[in-house]
Amino acid sequence: MKIQIINGPNLNLLGKRETSIYGSQSFEDFLETLKKRFPDVELHYYQSNVEGELVNKLHETGFSFDGIILNAGAYTHTSVALHDAIGGIKTPVIEVHISNVYAREEFRHKSLITSKCAGMMTGFGMEGYALALTYLIHRKSETTQKS
Amino acid sequence: MKIQIINGPNLNLLGKRETSIYGSQSFEDFLETLKKRFPDVELHYYQSNVEGELVNKLHETGFSFDGIILNAGAYTHTSVALHDAIGGIKTPVIEVHISNVYAREEFRHKSLITSKCAGMMTGFGMEGYALALTYLIHRKSETTQKS
Amino acid sequence: MKIQIINGPNLNLLGKRETSIYGSQSFEDFLETLKKRFPDVELHYYQSNVEGELVNKLHETGFSFDGIILNAGAYTHTSVALHDAIGGIKTPVIEVHISNVYAREEFRHKSLITSKCAGMMTGFGMEGYALALTYLIHRKSETTQKS
Amino acid sequence: MKIQIINGPNLNLLGKRETSIYGSQSFEDFLETLKKRFPDVELHYYQSNVEGELVNKLHETGFSFDGIILNAGAYTHTSVALHDAIGGIKTPVIEVHISNVYAREEFRHKSLITSKCAGMMTGFGMEGYALALTYLIHRKSETTQKS
Amino acid sequence: MKIQIINGPNLNLLGKRETSIYGSQSFEDFLETLKKRFPDVELHYYQSNVEGELVNKLHETGFSFDGIILNAGAYTHTSVALHDAIGGIKTPVIEVHISNVYAREEFRHKSLITSKCAGMMTGFGMEGYALALTYLIHRKSETTQKS
Amino acid sequence: MKIQIINGPNLNLLGKRETSIYGSQSFEDFLETLKKRFPDVELHYYQSNVEGELVNKLHETGFSFDGIILNAGAYTHTSVALHDAIGGIKTPVIEVHISNVYAREEFRHKSLITSKCAGMMTGFGMEGYALALTYLIHRKSETTQKS
Amino acid sequence: MKIQIINGPNLNLLGKRETSIYGSQSFEDFLETLKKRFPDVELHYYQSNVEGELVNKLHETGFSFDGIILNAGAYTHTSVALHDAIGGIKTPVIEVHISNVYAREEFRHKSLITSKCAGMMTGFGMEGYALALTYLIHRKSETTQKS
Amino acid sequence: MKIQIINGPNLNLLGKRETSIYGSQSFEDFLETLKKRFPDVELHYYQSNVEGELVNKLHETGFSFDGIILNAGAYTHTSVALHDAIGGIKTPVIEVHISNVYAREEFRHKSLITSKCAGMMTGFGMEGYALALTYLIHRKSETTQKS
Amino acid sequence: MKIQIINGPNLNLLGKRETSIYGSQSFEDFLETLKKRFPDVELHYYQSNVEGELVNKLHETGFSFDGIILNAGAYTHTSVALHDAIGGIKTPVIEVHISNVYAREEFRHKSLITSKCAGMMTGFGMEGYALALTYLIHRKSETTQKS
Amino acid sequence: MKIQIINGPNLNLLGKRETSIYGSQSFEDFLETLKKRFPDVELHYYQSNVEGELVNKLHETGFSFDGIILNAGAYTHTSVALHDAIGGIKTPVIEVHISNVYAREEFRHKSLITSKCAGMMTGFGMEGYALALTYLIHRKSETTQKS
Amino acid sequence: MKIQIINGPNLNLLGKRETSIYGSQSFEDFLETLKKRFPDVELHYYQSNVEGELVNKLHETGFSFDGIILNAGAYTHTSVALHDAIGGIKTPVIEVHISNVYAREEFRHKSLITSKCAGMMTGFGMEGYALALTYLIHRKSETTQKS
Amino acid sequence: MKIQIINGPNLNLLGKRETSIYGSQSFEDFLETLKKRFPDVELHYYQSNVEGELVNKLHETGFSFDGIILNAGAYTHTSVALHDAIGGIKTPVIEVHISNVYAREEFRHKSLITSKCAGMMTGFGMEGYALALTYLIHRKSETTQKS
Repeated sequence: MKIQIINGPNLNLLGKRETSIYGSQSFEDFLETLKKRFPDVELHYYQSNVEGELVNKLHETGFSFDGIILNAGAYTHTSVALHDAIGGIKTPVIEVHISNVYAREEFRHKSLITSKCAGMMTGFGMEGYALALTYLIHRKSETTQKS
Repeated sequence: MKIQIINGPNLNLLGKRETSIYGSQSFEDFLETLKKRFPDVELHYYQSNVEGELVNKLHETGFSFDGIILNAGAYTHTSVALHDAIGGIKTPVIEVHISNVYAREEFRHKSLITSKCAGMMTGFGMEGYALALTYLIHRKSETTQKS
Repeated sequence: MKIQIINGPNLNLLGKRETSIYGSQSFEDFLETLKKRFPDVELHYYQSNVEGELVNKLHETGFSFDGIILNAGAYTHTSVALHDAIGGIKTPVIEVHISNVYAREEFRHKSLITSKCAGMMTGFGMEGYALALTYLIHRKSETTQKS
Repeated sequence: MKIQIINGPNLNLLGKRETSIYGSQSFEDFLETLKKRFPDVELHYYQSNVEGELVNKLHETGFSFDGIILNAGAYTHTSVALHDAIGGIKTPVIEVHISNVYAREEFRHKSLITSKCAGMMTGFGMEGYALALTYLIHRKSETTQKS
Repeated sequence: MKIQIINGPNLNLLGKRETSIYGSQSFEDFLETLKKRFPDVELHYYQSNVEGELVNKLHETGFSFDGIILNAGAYTHTSVALHDAIGGIKTPVIEVHISNVYAREEFRHKSLITSKCAGMMTGFGMEGYALALTYLIHRKSETTQKS
Repeated sequence: MKIQIINGPNLNLLGKRETSIYGSQSFEDFLETLKKRFPDVELHYYQSNVEGELVNKLHETGFSFDGIILNAGAYTHTSVALHDAIGGIKTPVIEVHISNVYAREEFRHKSLITSKCAGMMTGFGMEGYALALTYLIHRKSETTQKS
Repeated sequence: MKIQIINGPNLNLLGKRETSIYGSQSFEDFLETLKKRFPDVELHYYQSNVEGELVNKLHETGFSFDGIILNAGAYTHTSVALHDAIGGIKTPVIEVHISNVYAREEFRHKSLITSKCAGMMTGFGMEGYALALTYLIHRKSETTQKS
Repeated sequence: MKIQIINGPNLNLLGKRETSIYGSQSFEDFLETLKKRFPDVELHYYQSNVEGELVNKLHETGFSFDGIILNAGAYTHTSVALHDAIGGIKTPVIEVHISNVYAREEFRHKSLITSKCAGMMTGFGMEGYALALTYLIHRKSETTQKS
Repeated sequence: MKIQIINGPNLNLLGKRETSIYGSQSFEDFLETLKKRFPDVELHYYQSNVEGELVNKLHETGFSFDGIILNAGAYTHTSVALHDAIGGIKTPVIEVHISNVYAREEFRHKSLITSKCAGMMTGFGMEGYALALTYLIHRKSETTQKS
Repeated sequence: MKIQIINGPNLNLLGKRETSIYGSQSFEDFLETLKKRFPDVELHYYQSNVEGELVNKLHETGFSFDGIILNAGAYTHTSVALHDAIGGIKTPVIEVHISNVYAREEFRHKSLITSKCAGMMTGFGMEGYALALTYLIHRKSETTQKS
Repeated sequence: MKIQIINGPNLNLLGKRETSIYGSQSFEDFLETLKKRFPDVELHYYQSNVEGELVNKLHETGFSFDGIILNAGAYTHTSVALHDAIGGIKTPVIEVHISNVYAREEFRHKSLITSKCAGMMTGFGMEGYALALTYLIHRKSETTQKS
Repeated sequence: MKIQIINGPNLNLLGKRETSIYGSQSFEDFLETLKKRFPDVELHYYQSNVEGELVNKLHETGFSFDGIILNAGAYTHTSVALHDAIGGIKTPVIEVHISNVYAREEFRHKSLITSKCAGMMTGFGMEGYALALTYLIHRKSETTQKS
């Protein structure tokens, strides 16, 4: 089973930036623990600050992977291009936010991409990525059972 | 470990109403499978169509339980009373929606309660309740480790 | 033929409250004349000031009755719960308002429930209930003819 | 008793246009059945696609007829001139819409004329014209009794 | 000197409709007194309830007359076509309203045409037409003096 | 002289919830001191978290009591049902808020009920109930003097 | 007959400021010609840049003069105090604007004071003051005739 | 192949009105050159300033012609009636604007009719009509090839 | 104990202006009765129609007096300067309105200053000033007891 | 004659994504047929999902090419940078959309770039590119004739 | 070289009010250091809490001084009169704010006057006045060089 | 002392594009004069049209440089990503705009980034960069003095 994690702008600063909100762990460290907890999943990771490069990565993996976990960061609130890209691919996309975006500034309450995602979760910290993985595995086992 | 599940208005119709959106399983049936998958959790269930009774239940369990999973249904979008109740209790509340509310009518895109919840998830079907449970167990184990 | 009339908040004051708008006849008196004019219809009547109890009554009658005539009063303008309840049942619902709500305060111009009803009428006084009944009888006879 | 029915723009296409919404009966055919059902009423019919001609017809009949049944079609949502014309005449006007306009596009949810009409109904199909007639007869008999 | 007065929808009811606002004098009667007070002006009068016919009249007189006095009635608030027509002709147009439209309903506070008129006046009753005439005569005498 | 105090949702938590805003005194304790300060007034107290039950209580006391002091809590900002109930009864209603709601979240700045109340006060802490009582006594003595 | 002309902020710069809009004549020069054209009127003139001083002047003359011609300049668009002052006095107030404010910036399209004035005119240049005078004389002669 | 060109209000002034925007050629002159460039097309032309007459013309040609090219002028921005008429006929309608309406006033940026047209073009001057014709010919040849 | 009462624009007309709303007593007369009812309080009174002078008075008394009772009249709804002034001083300010401003025009529903005041009351007539005084005395006695 | 075609985000998926809207032909295939139909034009093609790279390409070709045909995809609705880039170059830009964007989601109805383009067309499918080319050739021949 | 500094409402409290935002230095003290740093400039200083007096000062210095530095305080966000005054004078005006107004309350984000100023700066503390002075000197030397 | 200047989209066209607004000097030429005027500052310069690359550069320099001067061009008005990047770094950022953006189109009046910057200035032409530098030097000397 192949899963792609995609992180958007400023998430490369995790562990350094606004640690009261995001915690002091870098994503690379967290990724290692995640791989150990889910040894049967082939986990790919990509981060970029450029909106169009996130679109490229969605195109690249969106027809062959079993699932995509996307934290689009600030582009969540402004990008019609990501909305269209998610709508244009086959792989289900799970939207994840580390903090509870609805408890922060007003402009973070509006997401342009949720309507095209399979599901969304917000406020579960780093653990949100693990929950998304759990769901994708559950979903696959169900689909396999049916067929 | 004690967890309270609270379902709001019209969710007593699950399995009967708009089955293309919510599926044909009643919540009572689903609850049985959930209890089997999480045998170590003491699961309580409550449903009401009255806004104030949901507030009462939050008060009643919000100082002694380990977690509350709340699907407030239509009151999600209109109830300041629930917002205040969640803000006034101690137990962490996880907001769950069965369908992806952001892919439905405009008025379902606004939640008055998310800002007071620990986290929110939407679009994962019945499985969303299981993910919320998974998170609450994870959270407790972390808290226990720290102390 | 079984028809349920449901009246919402403050309509128990009919005949006492703001008589310049609603007239001085109580609904109970009017109901008697209505039963005499439509002797072949089994007419049920229910009134409540509690939003959740109106939801309950819609659930209770919404799978077996031939029609529901609903005057949701103030909840017309604020209740997503009623919107969902009407959308979740089988029986056709006719929305009735005694006064012309569009000639009154701005906040009465918005109905959250009309889109889920079979039809709506406003401004015909008590007679609106009779017109709604007339329509439901006409509708049934048409359906019967077709099948 | 003299009643004027006035139909606005595009209603001359009834039976030809968007039959899934409006049905396949032309208004002329329906009018014949209506006249038979209400033999004691002198029924007049007028249709125009021109806003100002509808105003003219309201002026012409609005001081001598017993009632006007107006389906202003698209002008319902844009015409201040019709609003003023209805407010300027003596005869009571009943607003009728064949489809449930509140279950259609957003721009059809706003009526500029309802506040000046005696009553409004929407969603009862062609039968709405019959209900409006029933009401006007009922209203007249009541007025006659009082005087 | 040639002046055209153009009255829009429902102004043919002057003296009959809402006399508490507009007074009980018909426009035809007023016109006679106006002609007597301004014997040197060739006064033309036109009234129509049809938006496009008002446009036609503006085109017809807008390249040869010395001034146009326009009371567009309800179309004042909705007609882009009149806005364009006034902007497309040469003759200066004075917008007149009998009542003070800013002391009435909200929707009468917005005029689509004032920005293309030479000037506007509201609230001076029938006398507003006389003031507009006075201004057009004054304007012409000034223009003549300069050349 | 008979006065009814009605407290809405979450006010049963006074003394326990958000004590930095509301203080640490329970309403029951405060009520005792109030009764001692106003020994000539027959003070009734009612609290409910159910919107419809508040409506019921207003109906029940609104035709016989000398005054009602209402702190509708969160329903202040959302309830059209309470707006209608206050408008439908005879007894004057004084709206009271313990904290200064205009110095708190935006959504607390809008009251649906003030326009139907005799007066409103906000920000005077528990003392607000005493000021409201003072006013009702003052008002009664004035009315009595006049008659 | 006594008439007060009141000019608001920046109108002391007439003839110096934005001459393409307002012309190059100072108000003092214009006032002289006005007095010659209306020798039977006792004309008073006042200008201030201070909002409260305009209120003072309205109070001072608003119970004894026959008319007030007010060009409130920028305060037209922001002053509730002037709105209340005009509503509180007896003398009729005519609102005048030299330029056509509806052909300028959006924020000049909204007047807070017109609803309390007897009438308003805009776009007639300096001549607007003369037209307002003409109207006040006409109005007085009519009132005199009636009594 | 039969094509109807329909021009709306004020377009009869082409060549005379606002020539800096629309050029100095009259539409009649342009039509002659168009007929020469497309000798195989039977071109019909109609212009009216009356909204309802444009609706009539759409009804008249909308079931038998191969294409309609519509420049609705000012009615583009205000007419629900045209929206409904285009939606009610069979012939594909191409919306054309001579100037680039999006580079002009705000109120011209909103079209009520585009959603019902096959396509829209704006800013290509008179040549827009030729491009629309080219498209309709292309479309027909494609349809013919397929069948 | 020293208290400053400050009245804003148009309140010098009390007893003369809109007596159906404000009553026929002048503030000066009322002030005399107030001084008699509260003989232990040193009461100062100030009224001005000039926004900046109200700011000056707040500065002048806002560091030494025990309380300020402010009826800012129309400036309540427009003055950011008063908002800042109240926020910048030490003395608690009680906002008072004679009429129930929430039962009047829409623009009176918004107060820019309440968020900076200790409390606000509206609708209690002249008696509101007395209630505010009562509160300030109560507040002082409490503060004194604590220290 | 040199023409640059620029396609924005997700248009590399043409033929694969949402084929019910965009058809099943890839842009590369279409480009070949286009080159054959316009053998005298030197056609350049560029696609990118990165907003800033589209800006770069506009700068690169915007001072030397004869025309640019731009389908900015999702960036149409959000990019001020493209608006500025088009406004900053010399070459005329034609905006093209394959589908009728006004018949799709609300957020696609707003274009930030049309006001800076020479013209725009929407809804003509792939053929829109051919029409844009036709126009640019026509435009060049006209310019050449004049000089 | 002559420069006028104008400070608006509440800025006389600098050093006393909200020192966490504005610092504890009074403006008079700062002015002394400023004069020492710019010995060749003739610096004038004026402060008022009255809107109209700020207008007066702009008129008085706006035709003879070399520059005006204006901190309009709260009137920045509400005064059309200042907007007009700045637009009506010759001297360039630099708008200065001590704090970063865009990092404070929403209502401080809108300035009515910036569009008429030569430039604006915000957030540089007292030093902003010095930067504005630096700019005005630079600007003058450039203008002198050119002529 | 190390300062980074970052210019956003289209600013590479300075001297070529819209020279009436931006002047005819290229930024490279200006940079040379700037370096000569501030010989003690180590000045770095970077320009990109890609939003994400601006984010990258802020990350790269935002923990080690003494100051950043950012002209984000069009991204100022649309980029949440830049807002987050500035908020996530340590170095103070000064926002600079060459033209007075508040005197241009409406959409340029809103900045998403100012609230996270130390200060902002607009309308000072190229000289704005020099003023920002002056401020950063002043700020550093102050900080140094204090420590």
